[in-house]
Amino acid sequence: MTEIQVNKVGKVGVLPTDKALGFGKIFTDHMFVMDYTSGKGWHSPRIIPYGGLEAQPAMIVFHYGQAIFEGMKAFKTADNRVNIFRPYEYLNRFNRSAKHLCIPEMDVEQIHDALIQLLTLEKDWVPNQPGTSLYIRPFVVADEPHLGVKVADSYRLFIILSPVAAYYATGFNPVSIKVEDKYVRATKGGLGEAKTPANYAMSLAAQQEAYAEGFGQVLWLDAVERKYIEEVGTMNILFKINGEIITPALNGSILGGITRKTVLELCRSWGLKVTERQISIEEVFEAHAKGQLEEVFGSGTAAVISPVGELSWKGQKIVINNNQTGEFAQKLFDYITGVQSNKIADQFNWMEEVK
Amino acid sequence: MTEIQVNKVGKVGVLPTDKALGFGKIFTDHMFVMDYTSGKGWHSPRIIPYGGLEAQPAMIVFHYGQAIFEGMKAFKTADNRVNIFRPYEYLNRFNRSAKHLCIPEMDVEQIHDALIQLLTLEKDWVPNQPGTSLYIRPFVVADEPHLGVKVADSYRLFIILSPVAAYYATGFNPVSIKVEDKYVRATKGGLGEAKTPANYAMSLAAQQEAYAEGFGQVLWLDAVERKYIEEVGTMNILFKINGEIITPALNGSILGGITRKTVLELCRSWGLKVTERQISIEEVFEAHAKGQLEEVFGSGTAAVISPVGELSWKGQKIVINNNQTGEFAQKLFDYITGVQSNKIADQFNWMEEVK
Repeated sequence: MTEIQVNKVGKVGVLPTDKALGFGKIFTDHMFVMDYTSGKGWHSPRIIPYGGLEAQPAMIVFHYGQAIFEGMKAFKTADNRVNIFRPYEYLNRFNRSAKHLCIPEMDVEQIHDALIQLLTLEKDWVPNQPGTSLYIRPFVVADEPHLGVKVADSYRLFIILSPVAAYYATGFNPVSIKVEDKYVRATKGGLGEAKTPANYAMSLAAQQEAYAEGFGQVLWLDAVERKYIEEVGTMNILFKINGEIITPALNGSILGGITRKTVLELCRSWGLKVTERQISIEEVFEAHAKGQLEEVFGSGTAAVISPVGELSWKGQKIVINNNQTGEFAQKLFDYITGVQSNKIADQFNWMEEVK
Repeated sequence: MTEIQVNKVGKVGVLPTDKALGFGKIFTDHMFVMDYTSGKGWHSPRIIPYGGLEAQPAMIVFHYGQAIFEGMKAFKTADNRVNIFRPYEYLNRFNRSAKHLCIPEMDVEQIHDALIQLLTLEKDWVPNQPGTSLYIRPFVVADEPHLGVKVADSYRLFIILSPVAAYYATGFNPVSIKVEDKYVRATKGGLGEAKTPANYAMSLAAQQEAYAEGFGQVLWLDAVERKYIEEVGTMNILFKINGEIITPALNGSILGGITRKTVLELCRSWGLKVTERQISIEEVFEAHAKGQLEEVFGSGTAAVISPVGELSWKGQKIVINNNQTGEFAQKLFDYITGVQSNKIADQFNWMEEVK
């Protein structure tokens, strides 16, 4: 176990009820912090009260965006234990993102240990109402103050925790999606497969325009031909066409989602035909015209599964499954959230108990 | 004039000599700060001692990169006056970048006033040795603490100042450039024409690989066909082919440099043929083969003009002007830096005196 200095708060906070939680606005009492200095490596792991940090105006993250993050979840069981969903999958991706951003490699075991210690201290912050969870946000920022464009010589790693409400407060409703034909999220040779601020900065203007037009999300197409499907806002996307599950292959500009991986593993274990390949928006519209587009849904850590009811592309709109949640999307959602909340046996070993 | 609250430091710092300055490592005593809150607009303009700021770990800039910046320069004349180079050009671009990042519009006159007040207070920090200047870095970060991906409801604007050394400490030497065929900086429909951290985060891995291979900079090609020239690292690029000045047109993925604009205006005033159009790397190599590629140079705020001595593309290398600084690049550099340092009459009204 890593030796971590612990500085506890004087008085602990109170976990609000489900309705007041929202997403990512409330934080627990403590956070994990660790520093990196060139020549010294990662050092000074510590758990300290959550709160403001001293930042220099010239730090590289503010100017040149050298930063990465992850988003994972922990759940409370009916008998008050805390389980984390696939922690090593997320932490290994964290390190892969680091490589894209020239951020020094981290010791996954050390971060894992730190997370376990932090969750042990904060276990009362894990909500237990149906659908709630504790959202875990590890992130690294380049904190060297320097205005030249360069790879930083110092970094700070944080793990912060936020209890979050049930994602579908008003039920599991299909979303209406705009197929984006003006903005581009990422390109081959870019940072699309890394979890880094740049990809999200890219999405803001498109998201604003789509909201203003009444859509709930944006579906990104490839940067080169503007026809191949990439991903949705903060999720991967999957299609059920004629009984087959089809999703864009990980081509370098798409984030390799852990929920995507989970869904594909589950579908294969259920005996479905699963194909990861290039798929164009025309193909999806044609499948719909032939009556073969059975379901469309997103997969991501926040919502787990998000059914898509409508797709609009250059003014043409198709309605999927009568704008109702598909049977298969519901089955996936029920299974994965069932395992997460300990109501279904964890036969794939997705969950790790915090002991 | 905007009413700005001023909180001065107790004891002012000392401007180091030229050699100790470097680029972007030393900051003046004070900075300008202003806040934005939804429903209230930009408010609380103030000049305070330069130093650490209180930052929340969950602020949107750390996670989703909602931020913009500018980079401009002030110069000291022989008779101790301070002149800024084309301030409105930079501040108007700052606002254009804000729009790309869904950051609320700023009042350019107000920021200009703030800059003048800050420079008046810090005039002793403007170095006066040949080639030195005071680098001015306005920037905005989204400081709302929120883990959902969204346009922030609060921002902080800063202007920080850094005295910088002569860029060419060892003389005005041509740089060797790698034409990048693996990484991509920006794409149409992306953020390439905004001055925002995402574009620089994109460049880090390519820059590291180019340095390791012995190159000084990277030349970016377009994201779609990977053949049209975009820009160099932190500069625009220009070619002198058969007496004509050719530079890539501003196509949406290239930053519209103020030095680029200055060079083009100057070339036109000198009666040269100036063309802004799509230009491929093959065309440049062919012009070289025909003996028509006279000069290649970058333009940017930091270096002003940077001659290119070698271009390497997929293992092929061309040497430009015998790897010597071209006569025309030298003429442009001498003219622009001459006006900046008040040695040449400012007939284009580029300079604004801080009064």
